[in-house]
Amino acid sequence: MSNTRLVFGGPLISSTKNRTIKEIRSLHSRKGREQTGCFWLEGIRLVGEAAQMRAQIELVVVAPDLLISQFGRELVDELQGRGVPCLAVTAAVFRSLSSKEGPQGLGAVVRQAWGQLPAPGTKEDTWVALEAVQDPGNLGSIMRTADAVGCAGLILVGNCTDPYDTAAVRGSMGSIFALRLVKASISEFLAWKTDCNFFWVGTSGAAPQHYRQISYPKPLLLLSGSEQKGLSVSLQKACDQLVSIPMVGRADSLNLAVATSVVLYEIFEQGNP
Amino acid sequence: MSNTRLVFGGPLISSTKNRTIKEIRSLHSRKGREQTGCFWLEGIRLVGEAAQMRAQIELVVVAPDLLISQFGRELVDELQGRGVPCLAVTAAVFRSLSSKEGPQGLGAVVRQAWGQLPAPGTKEDTWVALEAVQDPGNLGSIMRTADAVGCAGLILVGNCTDPYDTAAVRGSMGSIFALRLVKASISEFLAWKTDCNFFWVGTSGAAPQHYRQISYPKPLLLLSGSEQKGLSVSLQKACDQLVSIPMVGRADSLNLAVATSVVLYEIFEQGNP
Repeated sequence: MSNTRLVFGGPLISSTKNRTIKEIRSLHSRKGREQTGCFWLEGIRLVGEAAQMRAQIELVVVAPDLLISQFGRELVDELQGRGVPCLAVTAAVFRSLSSKEGPQGLGAVVRQAWGQLPAPGTKEDTWVALEAVQDPGNLGSIMRTADAVGCAGLILVGNCTDPYDTAAVRGSMGSIFALRLVKASISEFLAWKTDCNFFWVGTSGAAPQHYRQISYPKPLLLLSGSEQKGLSVSLQKACDQLVSIPMVGRADSLNLAVATSVVLYEIFEQGNP
Repeated sequence: MSNTRLVFGGPLISSTKNRTIKEIRSLHSRKGREQTGCFWLEGIRLVGEAAQMRAQIELVVVAPDLLISQFGRELVDELQGRGVPCLAVTAAVFRSLSSKEGPQGLGAVVRQAWGQLPAPGTKEDTWVALEAVQDPGNLGSIMRTADAVGCAGLILVGNCTDPYDTAAVRGSMGSIFALRLVKASISEFLAWKTDCNFFWVGTSGAAPQHYRQISYPKPLLLLSGSEQKGLSVSLQKACDQLVSIPMVGRADSLNLAVATSVVLYEIFEQGNP
């Protein structure tokens, strides 16, 4: 792994078959991310967010020929100053790592940060729990809204898509670094309920209770289910309250990120009148 | 084009190079859709919605080996009874048309339905206008919410993604058939404002006005801009009111479909107290 300080003007890795480059490319797959505990982050804005939020950046990857932004170049200098190793690559090698059209020439390998379920005695927080969410774009949008309304974290229950999938990270627009992320099996999650003092509100299209006609006490957990199946019966039963969002047209459900966000904004408005 | 009534048990088109199959495949591209004025619709649920909403179905495509659903088979019979031509194909040919994993063996070629800008004198309706929206998934989710809250239609202003893109159609979950869709250039759209009596509300992250602290008169037009750039200055200036959604976390913007939907639900709640 290159650790030269000479990123701009020095020698560039020019082979897409370079071992480190292949390792980075493996982070595009969930398997590769799980094996390493890292993920690939791309673009000046996202790498900047990671740096500012003190995410654990393992490696910066720069294509000097693509990175024309002064801010981007200063960011590389800053990260090098912090001792983050830096890999300078040709534009072609960078494109082999990139999933973007028009890549900006800046990316990073970042360590995933997984936390624990909130401790008993947590007081004022709002958390979101998602059961078996499948679409990384939805997950990214939900992280973005959860951050926007000041949620403390997100619990991924059961067999969820990976929040460190490129589409989820990108959809979160950096909010992934502002939230505590927790993974739990359904049984761990249900066991946690008995320890914790959170009020559980689940979203369900069939619930008779209108989402705007209840009060949301703190600490609060908002639960949504998968895109296809909604919340499972066992999680619905565990909720203290189920709410639904009214619909008057042909549509009989909303996009998962939309539905979760609409309820999150009601919770937010009640807390910030 | 096959018009045999014998869909199940008859001969199947087995060549992916068949001329009609190639024509259908061309609908995956925007160019192909614009040349024909049609789009490709896939899945039992969506074809069922199209049939129920009396969309103009030009051709039904069935892979009898994949279509095991009784409901799906009855739907084919019903459409044939209405005189819709039906093409029976092998599973391999169907997969060559499909963008789904695990295709259900039912698809249709449907005529696009574009309408006109609302006439002067429109009274109670709410419409949504999107300027230069780029992501078909966002567009699909917005159609779904717009339908759910009873909007009359959607105006696509300027250089938008195609609502008949497969991802947009699928994201709409059939709501695309419930909304009037209109395309307009920025100048046509601005010219229409002088004729119409709609109250224009634009979403803008920089607007000082909180989206929940105004009244939304009818007829109402809610405008949102593109994912990257938001509403252009010229459209912001044309609005009667700009509103923003508060944010307290790191995030400085929301996903476009989320933001538009959060405001649509406030409009809906005010109209349905």
